[in-house]
Parts: sequence; C-alpha cells; structure tokens
Amino acid sequence: MRGRRFWLGLALSALASPLTAATPNDIVTGAPASAWKAIDPEELILLTLEGGRQVVIQLAPRFAPVHVANIRTLARAGWFDGAAVTRVQDNYVVQWARPDGGPTRPAGVGAHPPAEYERPAAGLAFRPLGFRDSYAAETGYADGWPVARDGAAAWLVHCYGMVGVGRDMSPDTGDGTELYTVIGQAPRHLDRNIALVGRVVEGMEWLSARPRGTGPLGFYQDKAEALPIRSARLAGDLPVEQRPRFEMLDQASPVFGQWVQARANRKDDFFIRPAGALDICNAQAPIRRMK
Amino acid sequence: MRGRRFWLGLALSALASPLTAATPNDIVTGAPASAWKAIDPEELILLTLEGGRQVVIQLAPRFAPVHVANIRTLARAGWFDGAAVTRVQDNYVVQWARPDGGPTRPAGVGAHPPAEYERPAAGLAFRPLGFRDSYAAETGYADGWPVARDGAAAWLVHCYGMVGVGRDMSPDTGDGTELYTVIGQAPRHLDRNIALVGRVVEGMEWLSARPRGTGPLGFYQDKAEALPIRSARLAGDLPVEQRPRFEMLDQASPVFGQWVQARANRKDDFFIRPAGALDICNAQAPIRRMK
Repeated sequence: MRGRRFWLGLALSALASPLTAATPNDIVTGAPASAWKAIDPEELILLTLEGGRQVVIQLAPRFAPVHVANIRTLARAGWFDGAAVTRVQDNYVVQWARPDGGPTRPAGVGAHPPAEYERPAAGLAFRPLGFRDSYAAETGYADGWPVARDGAAAWLVHCYGMVGVGRDMSPDTGDGTELYTVIGQAPRHLDRNIALVGRVVEGMEWLSARPRGTGPLGFYQDKAEALPIRSARLAGDLPVEQRPRFEMLDQASPVFGQWVQARANRKDDFFIRPAGALDICNAQAPIRRMK
Repeated sequence: MRGRRFWLGLALSALASPLTAATPNDIVTGAPASAWKAIDPEELILLTLEGGRQVVIQLAPRFAPVHVANIRTLARAGWFDGAAVTRVQDNYVVQWARPDGGPTRPAGVGAHPPAEYERPAAGLAFRPLGFRDSYAAETGYADGWPVARDGAAAWLVHCYGMVGVGRDMSPDTGDGTELYTVIGQAPRHLDRNIALVGRVVEGMEWLSARPRGTGPLGFYQDKAEALPIRSARLAGDLPVEQRPRFEMLDQASPVFGQWVQARANRKDDFFIRPAGALDICNAQAPIRRMK
C-alpha cells in the first residue's frame, strides 16, 4: 500500500524470519524481565496539562542534586500548578514556567544553587557507547542516562527530551522554577553551560507538537497561546496503587549491549549500508511503562 | 522578567557591547551583501497547505538528479495537489503523499530511479567543517548543503529539515511520490540508505508541529487527521514578480568561516564553557528570504 510503505523497516520486525537480522526493537521486545530495572518513583514527576494529558519526567538526582531537590520542593508546594508552556522554539526547546512569575518561592528552595553542570566521573558506573562523538572525548551511559566523560568529569548530554533548568546570565540563578526540554537536534553546545536535571519518559509529543511561538526565541507573544499546566506531582507522593511504574533497560545487561550494536549496525531488511557508528543521542536507553 | 529569561544569549545580540564577542547571529546579520548567494528559483518548490500556509523546499539536483527530475515532473503535473501529511513520528519524520495513492504517474516519471544515495566527491567544492563526526570520516559543505565525505564518495546528511524520498525495501522504488522531512535528532543511520533530495528553507514549523500520529510508525490512523496539501509549484514556473527570493550565506565567503567558528566557540554572555566543537547538523548554512 503506497501510503504506508514501511521504508524504515521497523514495522517488519513482527514478520522477521530467522534469516532476518534482529532489529533494535526486536531485541528490546525480546529482552527478559531480568534485563529491566524499575525506575524509582521518587525520580518521577507527573505533569498534567490542560485537557488532562500527562507528561512524565524522570529526575537525575545523582547529576544535579540541589536543582532536583529544588524542583521536588517546588512540585510539593504546588508551585507548578498554574505554570504554562510559554515558549516553543522550533528545532530547539519547549519551556515552561509561571507566566505570572509565581508566588514567593517555598521555604527550602535556594535561589542560588551551585552550577551543577558536571560531576566527578568517579562513583558512576559508566558504560562507554564505543563510538566517537563530535563534542566530547567519550560518551556512554550512567544509570541509563546519556553521559559524556572527559578525564575526571562526567555530565549529562543535551539529547532530545532531556530536561534542564532555565537560568539568567549568572550561572547560579536557575532555581528550578523554569524548565525546558529539547525538541530538535541535540544542542550540545549547551552541555556544561546549564543544569540538566532529567528527561521526558512519556508524553513528549504533548510538548514537542505545540505550535511554535512567534516572539523572539519562540516565546508566545499572546498569553492565550500558552498551554496551562494543571499540576505537577511526584509519583512517590501518590498512593502506591496510583503510581505509574516505569522500567529501563539495564545498561549492565548483555541485552543492552546487543541493542547498542543493532542500533549501530542496522541489518534489518530496509538497510543497505549499516552505519557502523552511533551518536549517543540516537541511542537513548529504552524505557517502558509497566502500569 | 522571569518569564522571558534570555538564557540562550541570542536576544542579547542587539545589545552587544564592543566588549562582547560576536554571536553567530551577529555575524550573519552583519554579513555584507557579497557574502550571500541567490538560490536558483528552479530549485525551489512551494507547498501550500490547507489554510494557506506555505512550506518552501529547496531541491538538490547535484546530489539526486533523477529523483529531483521526477519531483519536478510530478509537481508540474499537479500530482501533489491533493497530497496530504499522512505521517508524523515524534523525533523522526513528517511524511506526505497522496492518501488515495494518486492517479497514474505522469509521463517521464521513472518508477525505478537509480539509488542516488551518494555521488562522486570529485566535482564538488567541499568546505570541511573542521570537527570530527560520529558517523563519517569527514563532514562539511558543498553548495551550502550539509555533506559527508569518505574518500571518493560524498553524500547529503540527514539533518533536521532535510527532505528525502520514501521507498519500499528495494532501493530503486522511491519515485518521488512520497516525501519526508526530519523533525528530530539527525537519523544519520539513514544516510546512504535513502535518497535525500532537498531541505525545508521556510515554514518548517507547519510540518514539525503537527500532532503526532498514533498508528504504527506515526501514521495517522484516522484519515481526517491528515493535513491536505493544496498545491506544489516550482518557483521558477511562476511569473518573476510572484517568485519568492532566497539567499544563502556563501560557504566560500570569509564570513561563513567566522560563523562556523562562532557556532563552535560560543563566547556571548550566556556561555561559560565554549564547546570547541560542532556537529554538521548544528551548523546548517544560514538562509534568508529576500522577498
């Protein structure tokens, strides 16, 4: 059927014969339960948008502990209830904040967090991607996060869907009240210039498909364009039966390595010439919802 | 103003003091007329969407001559009048085709074009980017296009906004009746596996912000979701006074080199640590509309 050409090969995975190389999707789908690790509900924030749609964000406390603590305190105080998506810049970022500036910050939210743009590589179980990177000496995974490493320092990488903290010119001014996520080519020049604090694990499309803002930097010129955020809740604060459950493919499992190799060397029917290479932002660790 | 933090530094360019390093935007804005080259109207296709919005695509005849000839023939025959955006897959592609399969192909459209996935590097004025790439031996520019090169072969790169020809499993089956553009992280594994034929030079947001499809591979499940394309016209076929005029920054101009260096080494006020590196898809040649 012309209108539905399966020219990316993915949809054929279900039909794959034993003679056809496993696709990355096949490998993920076939991974045993032991290859998956639960994501801590304390790391999950549920944003409910106007209309009831939900965006789920995983926080990265090991990379930006003070920023993450600020965001948790803000969420618990209801600070994001009444925030809105105020900026959508094509091939760059979607940003949300309180359009009204918001009330006084709740107690415990430091206005001047440290510049958590990198951390010691020591203490992280780093799994190298194994392919060269345009920007960093080395990229790979730590706790399933996309990470770059250079000598003693490690940092999160600005891949599609990563979440960061907006800031002013001074590097210590991003208190977590204004967040953004990447909706285009990885803006890697922002790495180590701004605090990344997490990633969108579900509902990305409710942010990435928003109309682009027509003001400078993609800000909405008309406040009526802003998409209200109804609430932000920590999954760990919900009654157990109401918590969503997510798992990620364990970077320490053999299946993870198979998946990386299959991503780098696509041999399913569609591909004529496997790339033999991979960019960390084209190989974000698989995550699945269990409930 | 909290809601409008200029945390990416771009908006400050207008206020830049002589002590502040020039931003990439400053350099483009300040480029002399001699640094710009007109884009041939024969290379421009104007897609008019339902509602009257327009997407402008530049074709790349030096890279995929047979595919580009097919697309021109199809456009002149009105084949895309009645096409629609039928697929939107988040962080991947937007695709358009005739949902009804379309009428018989017009005379001159070959059903089995050659696999124009790469071309000889000889004959192209190649300007190296000068930074390493995850996928190719070398990247850079040719005629202002993002290009990779490896020995004697050169090929267009799957950056955000590049336009390609959908195909079936066999590499010779993409006749140009089904096109896509990239709306996320550059899917470089598609390089040399599918024919790239152009790029969106204006109106990308009318495609990239479409609701994501909920069917397999992001196809719209309900045909009512598809966004109709009213017409596709070659700019060169319009009366001269109706043609839009576009220019691109000439890769051979000294300003182009300054712009690349500024992109790789952001020193405007916001940046604390210049990357000292650049990915070809984060440095697509500046293009401007003159009329």
